[in-house]
Amino acid sequence: MPETLVECVPNFSEGRDAAKIDAIVEAVRSAGASVLHRTSDSDHNRSVVTFAAPVGVIEEAAFQAVRQAVASIDLRLHSGVHPRIGAADVVPFIPLKGVTLEDCARLAERTGRRIWDELGVPVYLYEAAALRPECRSLADIRRGNFEGLSQAVLTDPARRPDFGGPALHPSAGAVAVGARKFLIAFNVNLATPDVEIARRIARKIRFSSGGLPGIKAMGVRLASRNLAQVSMNLTDFERTPPHVAYEAVRAEAEREGVAIAGSELIGLIPQKALDLAAARYLQLEDFSSSRVLENRLAGQP
Amino acid sequence: MPETLVECVPNFSEGRDAAKIDAIVEAVRSAGASVLHRTSDSDHNRSVVTFAAPVGVIEEAAFQAVRQAVASIDLRLHSGVHPRIGAADVVPFIPLKGVTLEDCARLAERTGRRIWDELGVPVYLYEAAALRPECRSLADIRRGNFEGLSQAVLTDPARRPDFGGPALHPSAGAVAVGARKFLIAFNVNLATPDVEIARRIARKIRFSSGGLPGIKAMGVRLASRNLAQVSMNLTDFERTPPHVAYEAVRAEAEREGVAIAGSELIGLIPQKALDLAAARYLQLEDFSSSRVLENRLAGQP
Repeated sequence: MPETLVECVPNFSEGRDAAKIDAIVEAVRSAGASVLHRTSDSDHNRSVVTFAAPVGVIEEAAFQAVRQAVASIDLRLHSGVHPRIGAADVVPFIPLKGVTLEDCARLAERTGRRIWDELGVPVYLYEAAALRPECRSLADIRRGNFEGLSQAVLTDPARRPDFGGPALHPSAGAVAVGARKFLIAFNVNLATPDVEIARRIARKIRFSSGGLPGIKAMGVRLASRNLAQVSMNLTDFERTPPHVAYEAVRAEAEREGVAIAGSELIGLIPQKALDLAAARYLQLEDFSSSRVLENRLAGQP
Repeated sequence: MPETLVECVPNFSEGRDAAKIDAIVEAVRSAGASVLHRTSDSDHNRSVVTFAAPVGVIEEAAFQAVRQAVASIDLRLHSGVHPRIGAADVVPFIPLKGVTLEDCARLAERTGRRIWDELGVPVYLYEAAALRPECRSLADIRRGNFEGLSQAVLTDPARRPDFGGPALHPSAGAVAVGARKFLIAFNVNLATPDVEIARRIARKIRFSSGGLPGIKAMGVRLASRNLAQVSMNLTDFERTPPHVAYEAVRAEAEREGVAIAGSELIGLIPQKALDLAAARYLQLEDFSSSRVLENRLAGQP
């Protein structure tokens, strides 16, 4: 394994045309990064590509992915249930090995500057890479979506991009480039099409409205499956792991008289989050990762 | 990692005197094997040492462990709730990498022969190493324990050891040496001291009395904690994983009006068994180990 490793998990506003995502994945591979995972959802009309590479390679791979998305995705023709402002909507850099969150913030800043300079797409820096407090949160940046933000930048200086603008790119919108810790994208589907129930549950459990630390949540409707979904980001899984989020949704759903239909991961999950869930549900006393055969064979303590 | 890897998980009839187990562990290490785990239980008065090594090394390590146990443990002075016939009670070889179960059966046979030749302790070959059908099952070999077996070997030819005997070794009894697939030792503690409840539950869930495939189970009492325990071996965890065994115990306990106090692993658990539990309880659709970050980074498919 190389000395440093950074993960990049860009989200693209295209979840139905696989060929467009194939081309993005190919751009990432050609730049020398390892593609770890990809997933597309037709209701969200959104794709997530997960890749990793050393510091020297990850910037180029992220830039080439954005370049390919800007060339092929036209936001004016896009519809989907997930909030978005750009063809390449968000590009987070995540420290995995031998780098700090601050290193990733600098990576984000350099990549963002290049996106504006070479592609002419305005950039917001978010979370750990944010230059201004009002841009720390992705939800704040994305308020009004592509359509609303296109207007807001013209009249509200506080909503202008960090690089470029103020007008957004006509077809590609803007890109939020950031740095953050590893995040688990975890969705719980309800056995009801009633999106209002999902929204009420999301409000109850998310941190911003008094819920659990590290949970971001929203209610969306999955038309193709006729289900409502509580779509979550777990930004601090060691504090609030997936099983705690799941139980919180389940308890609120029970209060609403609704069953859980199933759940899904978007992208990847750290082994520890699964181990914590298994140990909790099996009521294992004294469990630690050192009890796992593979870890012992690999010589982990 | 070496080309071949065999695991050996001997059980010793000593769970209270740590110094005696230290000496056994030291014998294993000196022979060049990697000690992966050790655990001792004072109610069972039993210790389990888990180690792994390539084919050339594992036999010597197992033999040295048995030699040390025979020299230090006197079964005539032993009491404990777990069935046993020897100071070194069972010595299973388990294929991990580059070896078959049949290879491990031959390892067991060679090691068993050496234990009788050099230490004068009679040996039974069990499970995949068994030479006779009546010795396939450890429970059959151990029937009557050290005390009962000491008498039975003198009168019942069917119960005689495969190597040595017929009389057992006066202080060290006999050793069951065998080969088997990876096994998960998993105990569920009941919130009651009533061992009869644990025994009824064990009878309900174990395969031999019509329960679940791959579950061996017995009810024991943990005097030190004033709890009854369903003590299980899961011999085919891909067919009946720990979470299925746990749920079976929980359902039967509920019928008895008893809660689960907790559960424990003895030795190690394969990652897959934890992943299966997490995916089941979190209701993850489409989960596979390829969704685990660490696996992707390690380049696993």
